[in-house]
Amino acid sequence: MNRKNKATERPHVVVIGGGFAGLTFCKRLRGNCRVTLIDKQNHHLFQPLLYQVATAGLSAAEIAQPLRSILQNRPNVTCIMDEVTAIDRSARSIHLADGDELHYNWLVFAAGGRTSYFGHDQWAGRTLGLKTIDDALALRRRILSSFERAEITDDQEQRRKLMTMVVVGGGPTGVELAGALAELAKVIFRRDFRRIDTAQAQVLLIEGSDGVLESFPRKLRDSAADQLRKLGVQVHLGHRVTAIENDQVRFGDRIVESANIFWTAGIEAVPLTAQLGGEQDRAGRVVVRSDLTLPDDDRVLVLGDAARVQRGDGSLVPGIAPAAIQMGKFAARLISARLRGELAPMNFVYRDKGIMATIGRKAAVARIGRWQLSGPPAWLGWLFIHLLFLIGLRSKIIVVTQWVWAYLRYQRGARIIFGQDSEKSSAS
Amino acid sequence: MNRKNKATERPHVVVIGGGFAGLTFCKRLRGNCRVTLIDKQNHHLFQPLLYQVATAGLSAAEIAQPLRSILQNRPNVTCIMDEVTAIDRSARSIHLADGDELHYNWLVFAAGGRTSYFGHDQWAGRTLGLKTIDDALALRRRILSSFERAEITDDQEQRRKLMTMVVVGGGPTGVELAGALAELAKVIFRRDFRRIDTAQAQVLLIEGSDGVLESFPRKLRDSAADQLRKLGVQVHLGHRVTAIENDQVRFGDRIVESANIFWTAGIEAVPLTAQLGGEQDRAGRVVVRSDLTLPDDDRVLVLGDAARVQRGDGSLVPGIAPAAIQMGKFAARLISARLRGELAPMNFVYRDKGIMATIGRKAAVARIGRWQLSGPPAWLGWLFIHLLFLIGLRSKIIVVTQWVWAYLRYQRGARIIFGQDSEKSSAS
Repeated sequence: MNRKNKATERPHVVVIGGGFAGLTFCKRLRGNCRVTLIDKQNHHLFQPLLYQVATAGLSAAEIAQPLRSILQNRPNVTCIMDEVTAIDRSARSIHLADGDELHYNWLVFAAGGRTSYFGHDQWAGRTLGLKTIDDALALRRRILSSFERAEITDDQEQRRKLMTMVVVGGGPTGVELAGALAELAKVIFRRDFRRIDTAQAQVLLIEGSDGVLESFPRKLRDSAADQLRKLGVQVHLGHRVTAIENDQVRFGDRIVESANIFWTAGIEAVPLTAQLGGEQDRAGRVVVRSDLTLPDDDRVLVLGDAARVQRGDGSLVPGIAPAAIQMGKFAARLISARLRGELAPMNFVYRDKGIMATIGRKAAVARIGRWQLSGPPAWLGWLFIHLLFLIGLRSKIIVVTQWVWAYLRYQRGARIIFGQDSEKSSAS
Repeated sequence: MNRKNKATERPHVVVIGGGFAGLTFCKRLRGNCRVTLIDKQNHHLFQPLLYQVATAGLSAAEIAQPLRSILQNRPNVTCIMDEVTAIDRSARSIHLADGDELHYNWLVFAAGGRTSYFGHDQWAGRTLGLKTIDDALALRRRILSSFERAEITDDQEQRRKLMTMVVVGGGPTGVELAGALAELAKVIFRRDFRRIDTAQAQVLLIEGSDGVLESFPRKLRDSAADQLRKLGVQVHLGHRVTAIENDQVRFGDRIVESANIFWTAGIEAVPLTAQLGGEQDRAGRVVVRSDLTLPDDDRVLVLGDAARVQRGDGSLVPGIAPAAIQMGKFAARLISARLRGELAPMNFVYRDKGIMATIGRKAAVARIGRWQLSGPPAWLGWLFIHLLFLIGLRSKIIVVTQWVWAYLRYQRGARIIFGQDSEKSSAS
């Protein structure tokens, strides 16, 4: 890419990853420089609503925006859809899959995380994760196809297996997915299907610790579990999954047959992160200084799920969107200052505005500052916040339409099966 | 499916295909009977807007509705998502891929059409068609990926190939696709991409006859070609495609290099149609009597693109949505009458309410009765009609939002790449 590598006076900032951290950085950076944003996808994904795509509430395009159009009004930002294959800090350059090499003055690493199976990589093929749009569409396809097959089979055991959904992991994604699946299977499908009794559909949530939503206050954790049970989710706490075969999950002393096994239990930094050569924790996150730079290289910043950032009290900055956005803003301030020649040290301080998770219709939990909310008020707060941060007015309008409709009509717009269900299990 | 095969007094009507004809039939049929609708998909697809999904204007779920929910209020209709493998008229039964056999008193065959390559089946792998949602999403993926690759390549020839789109076939689908591609590439992409000059993007429309939209009046056919040219489409008339290699189309004495070759030139009845054992024309359509039954079997009706229906003046009923809907209504009236024991002969009469095709922003042609419209009035008429017939109020609201937005902002909501581009061409 000669044009891009052409010698130029303007410093070059290379950003890897167009998630919350990388995108916020690109929007906030000021100063005389040129920026190259590299992402494997052509879009920014609003991760917090991904489970609604998976459960047929929203379409993919409603929570994804092309990076190019989000950054249209930032003339000094160039977007490249490509994969970074290598990072060479000694040469201050990165290598792309298409063979190009980009030199940087500053590197902002915000490549994010991916599903982690804690070393059980063979489980990857036997479960479906929920990190990308393709994951979400595959999950939706699996659920809808399973119920279609349940409708036409006469084999009771087969039918039960097809109508049983297992969510492994009780974090926000697992809780939101389990709640949405319960509503989909028991409420929305009830009028869709004639031959099967959707009341017999089962949703299991399996969590290793003693409660869901580990990062929430005890009271809200218990409330979340109760609200899930009210929706008909079987919440199994204190059980680690010990084995996953095709259509079979083993936990505690139980074996559950299911054609729909979903994994939300773990997340780890993407493999590329190791290319930074910094110290990584067990989740692959890179240990950074208080200004988010590498301990031995102030030209490289690590943001978002790729960074292990310690707070004053020793706790870690959580891997949630607000934290990633704050890191993006901080990094933009830092590099803007450096571009102006200001070398005064700066420290990233995470402002904890709270955390929230939705469970279902009028069911949610939220900690906002010191307040603890659950039920309808938390749910309304969740709707409001997530709509507020959704990028693009058109998306906001359409998502509101979908939500209002879903609320009034107990319907979901995207109950459409397309693509091939990759599933190889005996249920197919 | 014991329950379904269980002996019952009520006559059983089996419907194959949930397109315009089959779905309309299921909605309109009255009388004491049970109906089983079988479709390979779980949704009804609003075909006329499929090209907008392909060109990133709409999301798949916005033009597709689950058959089950459309027919929720028809308690005697059962939907089955399965594939019909065989039809046995002597036994009055059909066989399904999952092994079941369904006996019918009446069979309504409305399985529709598929892309036809006029015997050049090897072209199927070298072009993309536009008949299903998966086709549309593959086409969108191809276009967006090609421009992303064009943005990062320095090979001028490669870039030209990636930015050249060829549409083979000047029927309504070809015209609408070519127009939408020209707007997408030249107008919408202009602000998205930085390094490529989208004005250099080329859209070719290749049509074998002496004009596009063969079924339209001469004046409108010429107007449509002019409107396409105004949008920057290179319209090549009177040329048959003689060869298609990977990334290469040969027509007349020209060879065009393109990584985006789209085929809309032909349609034929699906292979299953042959199972009816009736007389078929070259397009695989079954010759039916004036009441849409098979000449030798009044228990089998053939509707939509699968039927070859002659009109009084000897012309054929066109393969368009309004005709399929009229056939569905007629078939429902006929079988309702038979269920009441009325055996009086009935004849299907196609009421030609007109035809319309859209070309782009404020560009379209329409023949309504004797009127001939082109340009903005035809375009407004097209918008109104298509919105009117789109199933589901939610879809109507969302599609209007998308259209108004696209019109005001020159943006398209669904410019999101997901899934794998299956393309094996040298451009990848």
